[in-house]
Amino acid sequence: MNSTFRHVALIGKYQTPGNREATAASRSLMADIADFLQRRGCEVSLEHDTAHYTGLRDAYPVRTVQDIGRDCDLALVVGGDGTMLGSGRQLAHTGLPLIGINQGRVGFVTDIRLENYQATLAPMLAGEYTREFRSLIQTCVMRGEECVFEALALNDVVVNRGGTSGMVELRITIDGHFMANQRADGLIIATPTGSTAYAMSAGGPILHPSVAGWIMVPIAPHMLSNRPIVLPDSAVVEVTIVAGRDIAANFDMQSLASLQHGDRIVVRRSEHRSCFLHPQGWSYFDTLRQKLHWNEGGQ
Amino acid sequence: MNSTFRHVALIGKYQTPGNREATAASRSLMADIADFLQRRGCEVSLEHDTAHYTGLRDAYPVRTVQDIGRDCDLALVVGGDGTMLGSGRQLAHTGLPLIGINQGRVGFVTDIRLENYQATLAPMLAGEYTREFRSLIQTCVMRGEECVFEALALNDVVVNRGGTSGMVELRITIDGHFMANQRADGLIIATPTGSTAYAMSAGGPILHPSVAGWIMVPIAPHMLSNRPIVLPDSAVVEVTIVAGRDIAANFDMQSLASLQHGDRIVVRRSEHRSCFLHPQGWSYFDTLRQKLHWNEGGQ
Amino acid sequence: MNSTFRHVALIGKYQTPGNREATAASRSLMADIADFLQRRGCEVSLEHDTAHYTGLRDAYPVRTVQDIGRDCDLALVVGGDGTMLGSGRQLAHTGLPLIGINQGRVGFVTDIRLENYQATLAPMLAGEYTREFRSLIQTCVMRGEECVFEALALNDVVVNRGGTSGMVELRITIDGHFMANQRADGLIIATPTGSTAYAMSAGGPILHPSVAGWIMVPIAPHMLSNRPIVLPDSAVVEVTIVAGRDIAANFDMQSLASLQHGDRIVVRRSEHRSCFLHPQGWSYFDTLRQKLHWNEGGQ
Amino acid sequence: MNSTFRHVALIGKYQTPGNREATAASRSLMADIADFLQRRGCEVSLEHDTAHYTGLRDAYPVRTVQDIGRDCDLALVVGGDGTMLGSGRQLAHTGLPLIGINQGRVGFVTDIRLENYQATLAPMLAGEYTREFRSLIQTCVMRGEECVFEALALNDVVVNRGGTSGMVELRITIDGHFMANQRADGLIIATPTGSTAYAMSAGGPILHPSVAGWIMVPIAPHMLSNRPIVLPDSAVVEVTIVAGRDIAANFDMQSLASLQHGDRIVVRRSEHRSCFLHPQGWSYFDTLRQKLHWNEGGQ
Repeated sequence: MNSTFRHVALIGKYQTPGNREATAASRSLMADIADFLQRRGCEVSLEHDTAHYTGLRDAYPVRTVQDIGRDCDLALVVGGDGTMLGSGRQLAHTGLPLIGINQGRVGFVTDIRLENYQATLAPMLAGEYTREFRSLIQTCVMRGEECVFEALALNDVVVNRGGTSGMVELRITIDGHFMANQRADGLIIATPTGSTAYAMSAGGPILHPSVAGWIMVPIAPHMLSNRPIVLPDSAVVEVTIVAGRDIAANFDMQSLASLQHGDRIVVRRSEHRSCFLHPQGWSYFDTLRQKLHWNEGGQ
Repeated sequence: MNSTFRHVALIGKYQTPGNREATAASRSLMADIADFLQRRGCEVSLEHDTAHYTGLRDAYPVRTVQDIGRDCDLALVVGGDGTMLGSGRQLAHTGLPLIGINQGRVGFVTDIRLENYQATLAPMLAGEYTREFRSLIQTCVMRGEECVFEALALNDVVVNRGGTSGMVELRITIDGHFMANQRADGLIIATPTGSTAYAMSAGGPILHPSVAGWIMVPIAPHMLSNRPIVLPDSAVVEVTIVAGRDIAANFDMQSLASLQHGDRIVVRRSEHRSCFLHPQGWSYFDTLRQKLHWNEGGQ
Repeated sequence: MNSTFRHVALIGKYQTPGNREATAASRSLMADIADFLQRRGCEVSLEHDTAHYTGLRDAYPVRTVQDIGRDCDLALVVGGDGTMLGSGRQLAHTGLPLIGINQGRVGFVTDIRLENYQATLAPMLAGEYTREFRSLIQTCVMRGEECVFEALALNDVVVNRGGTSGMVELRITIDGHFMANQRADGLIIATPTGSTAYAMSAGGPILHPSVAGWIMVPIAPHMLSNRPIVLPDSAVVEVTIVAGRDIAANFDMQSLASLQHGDRIVVRRSEHRSCFLHPQGWSYFDTLRQKLHWNEGGQ
Repeated sequence: MNSTFRHVALIGKYQTPGNREATAASRSLMADIADFLQRRGCEVSLEHDTAHYTGLRDAYPVRTVQDIGRDCDLALVVGGDGTMLGSGRQLAHTGLPLIGINQGRVGFVTDIRLENYQATLAPMLAGEYTREFRSLIQTCVMRGEECVFEALALNDVVVNRGGTSGMVELRITIDGHFMANQRADGLIIATPTGSTAYAMSAGGPILHPSVAGWIMVPIAPHMLSNRPIVLPDSAVVEVTIVAGRDIAANFDMQSLASLQHGDRIVVRRSEHRSCFLHPQGWSYFDTLRQKLHWNEGGQ
């Protein structure tokens, strides 16, 4: 049965250069998957960095993530949740769908096990899949009237204190309405995707991916009544740095901005969403149950 | 300035009969408010029970809540959050807007202080108000193929163990997808309105009223990974009683169903919403800040 | 190598009568263990109920728990944590040491696996063991000047609301000092042993068994600042029922008292402690790590 | 009635230099208190820094904290909890008792209001007081076999990640027994005194000051089962830095150590305790109730 996706891009997990064994394993794995795709009639391109570290630069056409978004019908991400989220964020504006194959334990968004990827992928390539969209946060750091930093987050925006300083004080407004001045180690604004990551460690709830909201979770807040709050994702959240030292904002723990007093982190929903494909019959709750070890009979 | 609401119903807090002083105070207060409304050109009706316990049965036309929904343009609720939520639930299907005047400290939904109600109400009657909708949960308890109990909740649906028995075991499905078997003291499914009530005591987050979701919070769950989860309010949640003794379900802590093994509590969004009016410029965050004592400078 | 314990009592988990297979398995298991002990020179007695349901009444001397405390040097408990805690509570006043063999997964206090019990027990019988003491709570329910109920708890004392009623209100004093009036679903006072049971589900911390304290944890408290508190176990804690309906107190989820307004639950440390023996080199932290799945690499 | 304390030291809150009004107010206040003490027959000394910034260097004998510990019978600390804790830590080894007068709202350890300090102090000076001891943590940072940093903490020892880096990984042993490898933002080890400070923000319980234990609280731990744990204060806790960047340890948020991989933070109970005096009839629970707003009737 041939693929309904004509041109598939392969994206791998970035490996530390110099580890010959890991590189060889990645090369062999990528070649295997490419071969599997070609046998199903797909044209295969290799993502630029993936081609580079696997040494497969000459075996397949190589494309940057930008070109993948333009030229391909599907991206197959082989790695962990981090790789998948990075690719999802980079490709969101193109609408390209992604499938995640996990090399280790199944992740929250990479739900196809490497062991039996062929049996799972075959029907998906033939069009039998469930499509799921994940919303992203578009953030702008304003200094006065100027946007000094811009970033996109599929997991979360985190503002936190420096490692050697006391609490930050943040002033939060929602759509221009004053919400609160919070003193805490920091503040997390997470998407539903990010709700099972850092936000959960800080005491936040799980947000189902189809809830149109963000979860705002203070980190070790001074006041016990500063509870996590779920906000509509249509709202514009503005966080102003009132006090504290060495304050930084990070976005999916990737890009980073160093903040000054008076800086405003302005958070809104991105107009783009990441599109993930899952095997037919997939349920978000199966993933939750597995990742959180529900129903395993013990603590 | 005359009222844009032609016919206003007055609904009071139910008082324990026999307390002469409280009754006299209520009577005097209701007469005051009725007088204020009439001077603004409103026709005033008194809710049946309110008329009864205040002894004002002959002073104003008396209407049941059902008739109020049919005949009036506005309901003015004088009491606490409980009275307001009860009236909101009863009137939701009629679309009648409600205004809440609080006799004690300001509540989450009764945000007009009794002291200066005239100054606050006057512009609202003249049309200067903010309209806010609150979603409700429609619940049906299924025993086999039969619905043995039906209820509407503006705050929450709670399933819990008896006072002298061990944990309940509940099987939860969402839109037919198996989510988890949970062992706990019980389970709360709360609306955004209910998220600041019992659900918060059990560790749930705050849900902004415009988030289209429910928060599901286990009460003292056996497993630490059974975190609160926010579900889209478009989902049908089904909770099946698997094990436990003396299990009951309650709805806004008002109506109550005694449950058997195999009973299924089916939860969906009601097609109706309660409509609350607030003074112009009102913000949900002002209420939160006041009720949760944020920004008071101390713990 | 012979046992340093001359006379060992065997105590089993109570099985539902009528399950022939389970009964036969228990009989065979108990006979095996008894044989193992006799080969090491121990006299073996069977606990009365254990003898009854295994049908081994005529094979070994049978003793009640009371007689075991008087006549034996060691009790070998075969079952789960529940069986161990029950025996520990019953035997605390005698000072008899207990060893726990777990038939299923290892428990918090039954830390010897059934599979290789002989290899683990042999050195313990020869005197190579770690002795550990667990404190107990002695509770008296006072109605007026009369103690209407007395109980001993190795895990916890729990006061909670009925299944169909609202919050309880409890007045708490410590050594006669007023602490707080709490409104909640209930209140748990747990020993270090109980800190990893129900108290943990309600949000309490772990208490190391050698900490001379109780943890008091409110269940779904109305106020967010009603945090769990660790009290010295030398303190006398008094909990008075102020308001609520159908309130009950239970002790290790075994014995139960139905409470009235004005009843006072008076909690003090028992003068007796349970004595558990563990294999040499045993560490409480190994048990914690295993039971709480720390260091398993994932959530 | 004369004082049973012959020689009292006055210690003030450090003020930012240059604020003339604050300095003048402090000077006047200190002179008032000194006068009050002298009228009761006390010799009065001024702490060196306090004398300096109030400009009272020539009005009273000036002593360093070291000399105060040697020469005085009592230290009267005027400021907030921070000042009191700092003085308590510095004077612990001398056994000198401290009394705390709070200039703002009453604190956890500074429980005498400035307004009516004379009425409260008079009987205390005459010998009517309650003495309370607070334990301290003695910490040593080991790099290989060398102790590279030493500090004393009355509140807490905190190890945390840098502001721009991911989680730390810490290996924890208790009395040489391996407890766990934890990945988190950081780890707090707090005394009972510190249990109501940062540790509470991170989700820890309250520890009554007479509990001989520390509370160890992970900050935003990766695993939900990494609960706060109460350890006996007789234990030696060792925390080894396994992974992470820019990791720092701080002690009462005062002194600070920058840490490397392999560094071991060794925590043990100090042989000294701080001694605080309270008005007769004082109860720790009164302070808790006031600071945590228990029993104020609402959330």
